[in-house]
Amino acid sequence: MTETLRADGRTNDELRPITIERGWSDQAEGSALISYGRTRVLCTASFTNGVPRWMSGKGKGWVTAEYSMLPRSTNSRMDRESVKGKIGGRTHEISRLIGRSLRAVVDMKALGENTLVLDCDVLQADGGTRTAAITGAYVALADALEWGRTKKFISQKAQPLIDSVSAVSVGIIGGVPMLDLAYTEDVRADTDMNVVVTGRGKFVEVQGTAEAAPFDRSELDVLLDLAVKGAITLTEFQTSALER
Amino acid sequence: MTETLRADGRTNDELRPITIERGWSDQAEGSALISYGRTRVLCTASFTNGVPRWMSGKGKGWVTAEYSMLPRSTNSRMDRESVKGKIGGRTHEISRLIGRSLRAVVDMKALGENTLVLDCDVLQADGGTRTAAITGAYVALADALEWGRTKKFISQKAQPLIDSVSAVSVGIIGGVPMLDLAYTEDVRADTDMNVVVTGRGKFVEVQGTAEAAPFDRSELDVLLDLAVKGAITLTEFQTSALER
Amino acid sequence: MTETLRADGRTNDELRPITIERGWSDQAEGSALISYGRTRVLCTASFTNGVPRWMSGKGKGWVTAEYSMLPRSTNSRMDRESVKGKIGGRTHEISRLIGRSLRAVVDMKALGENTLVLDCDVLQADGGTRTAAITGAYVALADALEWGRTKKFISQKAQPLIDSVSAVSVGIIGGVPMLDLAYTEDVRADTDMNVVVTGRGKFVEVQGTAEAAPFDRSELDVLLDLAVKGAITLTEFQTSALER
Amino acid sequence: MTETLRADGRTNDELRPITIERGWSDQAEGSALISYGRTRVLCTASFTNGVPRWMSGKGKGWVTAEYSMLPRSTNSRMDRESVKGKIGGRTHEISRLIGRSLRAVVDMKALGENTLVLDCDVLQADGGTRTAAITGAYVALADALEWGRTKKFISQKAQPLIDSVSAVSVGIIGGVPMLDLAYTEDVRADTDMNVVVTGRGKFVEVQGTAEAAPFDRSELDVLLDLAVKGAITLTEFQTSALER
Amino acid sequence: MTETLRADGRTNDELRPITIERGWSDQAEGSALISYGRTRVLCTASFTNGVPRWMSGKGKGWVTAEYSMLPRSTNSRMDRESVKGKIGGRTHEISRLIGRSLRAVVDMKALGENTLVLDCDVLQADGGTRTAAITGAYVALADALEWGRTKKFISQKAQPLIDSVSAVSVGIIGGVPMLDLAYTEDVRADTDMNVVVTGRGKFVEVQGTAEAAPFDRSELDVLLDLAVKGAITLTEFQTSALER
Amino acid sequence: MTETLRADGRTNDELRPITIERGWSDQAEGSALISYGRTRVLCTASFTNGVPRWMSGKGKGWVTAEYSMLPRSTNSRMDRESVKGKIGGRTHEISRLIGRSLRAVVDMKALGENTLVLDCDVLQADGGTRTAAITGAYVALADALEWGRTKKFISQKAQPLIDSVSAVSVGIIGGVPMLDLAYTEDVRADTDMNVVVTGRGKFVEVQGTAEAAPFDRSELDVLLDLAVKGAITLTEFQTSALER
Repeated sequence: MTETLRADGRTNDELRPITIERGWSDQAEGSALISYGRTRVLCTASFTNGVPRWMSGKGKGWVTAEYSMLPRSTNSRMDRESVKGKIGGRTHEISRLIGRSLRAVVDMKALGENTLVLDCDVLQADGGTRTAAITGAYVALADALEWGRTKKFISQKAQPLIDSVSAVSVGIIGGVPMLDLAYTEDVRADTDMNVVVTGRGKFVEVQGTAEAAPFDRSELDVLLDLAVKGAITLTEFQTSALER
Repeated sequence: MTETLRADGRTNDELRPITIERGWSDQAEGSALISYGRTRVLCTASFTNGVPRWMSGKGKGWVTAEYSMLPRSTNSRMDRESVKGKIGGRTHEISRLIGRSLRAVVDMKALGENTLVLDCDVLQADGGTRTAAITGAYVALADALEWGRTKKFISQKAQPLIDSVSAVSVGIIGGVPMLDLAYTEDVRADTDMNVVVTGRGKFVEVQGTAEAAPFDRSELDVLLDLAVKGAITLTEFQTSALER
Repeated sequence: MTETLRADGRTNDELRPITIERGWSDQAEGSALISYGRTRVLCTASFTNGVPRWMSGKGKGWVTAEYSMLPRSTNSRMDRESVKGKIGGRTHEISRLIGRSLRAVVDMKALGENTLVLDCDVLQADGGTRTAAITGAYVALADALEWGRTKKFISQKAQPLIDSVSAVSVGIIGGVPMLDLAYTEDVRADTDMNVVVTGRGKFVEVQGTAEAAPFDRSELDVLLDLAVKGAITLTEFQTSALER
Repeated sequence: MTETLRADGRTNDELRPITIERGWSDQAEGSALISYGRTRVLCTASFTNGVPRWMSGKGKGWVTAEYSMLPRSTNSRMDRESVKGKIGGRTHEISRLIGRSLRAVVDMKALGENTLVLDCDVLQADGGTRTAAITGAYVALADALEWGRTKKFISQKAQPLIDSVSAVSVGIIGGVPMLDLAYTEDVRADTDMNVVVTGRGKFVEVQGTAEAAPFDRSELDVLLDLAVKGAITLTEFQTSALER
Repeated sequence: MTETLRADGRTNDELRPITIERGWSDQAEGSALISYGRTRVLCTASFTNGVPRWMSGKGKGWVTAEYSMLPRSTNSRMDRESVKGKIGGRTHEISRLIGRSLRAVVDMKALGENTLVLDCDVLQADGGTRTAAITGAYVALADALEWGRTKKFISQKAQPLIDSVSAVSVGIIGGVPMLDLAYTEDVRADTDMNVVVTGRGKFVEVQGTAEAAPFDRSELDVLLDLAVKGAITLTEFQTSALER
Repeated sequence: MTETLRADGRTNDELRPITIERGWSDQAEGSALISYGRTRVLCTASFTNGVPRWMSGKGKGWVTAEYSMLPRSTNSRMDRESVKGKIGGRTHEISRLIGRSLRAVVDMKALGENTLVLDCDVLQADGGTRTAAITGAYVALADALEWGRTKKFISQKAQPLIDSVSAVSVGIIGGVPMLDLAYTEDVRADTDMNVVVTGRGKFVEVQGTAEAAPFDRSELDVLLDLAVKGAITLTEFQTSALER
């Protein structure tokens, strides 16, 4: 699975170049500008003391996310959802996925009655924007939680972060399983899967879709192996960014 | 995995009572009122000769779906999305899932320039509404394709239907994997997975979500086994309904 | 006025076959699936203890209704109002009519600070959907009020229901007055009237519209006679359903 | 029925002071500023050669109407529907009523493929705004049709206007039937009816609503008599305005 | 600058005929129907005791404005913003301009916790609608403030009105600076400027836009001179209207 | 006017540090990431061959712009306009200003039937976002026009760019005129003016607003002097970026 047949010279089990610029924004409590190759997503974490009224009084926090693409992040310009007056199904779906993925590694009791909103804005898109958003949002989240601790909104003893989380896409193209699909690869994939994995190697989300032809159990197994391998490397990038 | 511990007396690998009333509607080209226990979904298939302008001239058809819940299908009344003026993320997500699932078993070339819209309206909800919708929509779709053939919009030799498709939910509750979750089970699940399987046993969609705790590879394997088992039975119900 | 000239063999003063399946839904406090021939409307009544804030503290209740058609209830598929992002004028108009009709037979003081929402969803449409909705909603309402009494939200002595209410359409087709128009008749009518009548024979609403040619006083009189006759029969169906 | 008991000194069968300022607008093809007492509605008729695409090629025209209230036409300010982002049910219902009422007196074949849009904007509201709108819109419509004839969009021989049309409200207050209700009367009415009548005395619309108590046949008859009487006077005002 | 070359015979530094009908509406606390030639705007001021929740407790008031055009105020009919479901950029921009202009002459502390909403509805449009709206809204505002004083919502000693305000457009057409542009002039202007001036001759807003060619400093100076001259006359009309 | 009294140590007539990263985006035909101090705006230019249908056949092009702020570009998070379902007045107003400013330096005939859309997305906001957007958008526009020439959508001889354009804010704070206001300065300004100036020193837009107190002619003159001075420096930055 290591011979070169990808347009950018990668092997099948190789991620694109990953960069994480932690603290890109001066305004947010946590932020990261993450790149998976040409895909670039600005992730900010907004920390608010308190929770929405319907959750109040339960001693638990809340984490939510919003995903969006700039109109010219893509090769041809898309209309803005604000101009169209409604949010498309794809945007909703990805926002929900990011939110669930992050909630899976936060202990809401330990967070206390605080709210975190993760904004993931795609500045440039070349496939894998939702997975880059999850990986980058985790870094922003970690910093915002640290900010909350410094401001004493989170108690010193509390450990709201119970694991790390990252995500990567995998797919089968012309019968060959591949890791971290770029846009031109994604378009050609028979099967496409987004996998969200914790730092400890457990699954948070497995979303496999047969784009062209249904897939069988053995194909599913190979794809999961590839995704777990990619997630190990992504976790190292996150750790390294947070140590700086 | 067969001892009784479910509220309705089912074993862990047992579906709820399934019924499919084919042709429930006089107006649609195909229709089915499907029940998974108390969950009841009215599925209609609308056949239109021609395709949207942006697809025209390619000799290919289109299949799409819309999912919705009646406001009092649930235990407490929800506001209508038409009244709120926008469609929620969950509705969008499920509509897209149903559409993809059905497209996976249709040969768009064989369909020709014809459009099928599947409407899945939940009349009563008790968990598994999206999976019941897929299973029922397949029956409505099959009848609408037959109608299109009768009307000569589809040529006699064409075989647009390349497989059947059904769906079921599986989950882990208190450490125990279970098939076809009812609403009260779904709420308690640590992990929840919707699996869409073809009649030939291949996967179209695998959507696993860790609701409470991330899951590992062995848990994933057991859940997939259960889902495939359920899908075999659901396929029999579909075949039987279509033979009548 | 009794010779047969209608497509379905009815006499001019004859209703279509009427059925009322009381308690069709397990979830709602009251429900009825009503048919006027091929027209089928699912009516549910949702009972909530308490009233909207702007009404609170006056010791009075509130009854309101929402009407909607499934996209493929009709012969050709309509776009969903939730997808279009706004509710059409016809839908608003009918929802308001149903609400007013039911409020006319409820003593809001006796109801106390409780709210009833009647959802009337047309599953199949063949003319007269608004009149079937009113007749069916009354049955759902009666059951929900009984539920409220059982739950002690309504006092034992209170009599919130002061009369029954039903509705029917009448029209003049080719100079001949007819009762309970089916869709193909409605389209051909010169004059079309929806009449809402109480069990005691009084009028709640009289909505006559000249579709093709203005009508005179004597035509109006004949139509009202027909409507009152139909309402007497509909009241018997309601009574019978509620006695079961 | 002639003793004085109304706040403004009118007898029960008396209209409020009626004025019609024909040609109030320089921009529209036809216009009228009509007053029923303090109620003032600006009606403009916009004539366009051609019809919407879905009607084209049938040799028939189209007449439609839009009703709206200025935010401070009423005693306390209402939010604008443009600001709320949606049109309320009442607005829709009245726009549709005005459109139907005018179409009833236009021969669409004689109109030819031309479109008329009647805008009825309530500048000041004191009850009866929809009835004043219909009466005023007729005058604007007549002028716009004349304009269309002058411009040769309507042939010289064609007679698109087959009758005149006016409207008035009637109601029962404290058991007494009254003509042309002002706002404070409308609020107190047990029964409220809007009646649209042609110049030849035929009914276009009869919309009676029991606000407090259902009404019987004899009450309905008295109200219709009153409305017809009012319509005769309104027709005279229209004729006089159009002769100037 | 006084030779006649304008279509309506005006000199370059001459306003169109100005009329202000103060108190046109019976319902509002203050109102004025203002004309700048054929441009006619109905301005109403709605006074409410209290302020929006987010401003409450600061002892300060609030003044805001909404601008709108009737669909047939213009030469060809425009769609209603309520029908389109959203407010256009131009409408927003003008509403904000009117609000800022009026707030510049109100002492919010002296106003106390009271809210004024100015509605400016264009009944007929022939250029300069936003400037006419500001000039007319000032008159309505002055009357509503007087009403608030009479009702004791504003204390006797308080002087909320610290100056008057009016507005006028100026522009350069074919190299010639002109005052108060009518629609046909506005369309031909190279540069267009709206200037809002207080009774004491200070600027509240200066909005100059190069429509065709950028303008230099000397052109800007001439336009400002013209605008100030026009504002002096408009202030006299306001004073005169308020003295009646 | 050169003594230091600004929080960031600038003199009154000094711009913040300006940077222009030309070609920041790989996807757009032209792009620039511009900074005015902490304010950072990503400007992309999308070139499309052809114009909207209503402009077609006139041999002229079209230039338009859309402005938006990321939700966490500001110190406290704002709701997304796509989530709110409508675009606010401020956004509309700024989008229109940017569009007009750029059109002032483009010869639409020379552009030919091509369309340019400038997207200006504020990644971080600290005052002056609209002025930074205009200055950056010019750079993106210039590159996109060059791209259009390379692709032969613009003829070799055509000179669509007739001048350059930049913008800067000026204001009076505590009686002192200042150039290029940061957010904390903007909030304290008595008068605030945005000035759009061409490379040749002519005005495209002058938008002066009295925030606290109306301003007189001499204050206006000083502000314009400052703005022109700032624009000269901004033009140098643009020229330098485009030469690289």
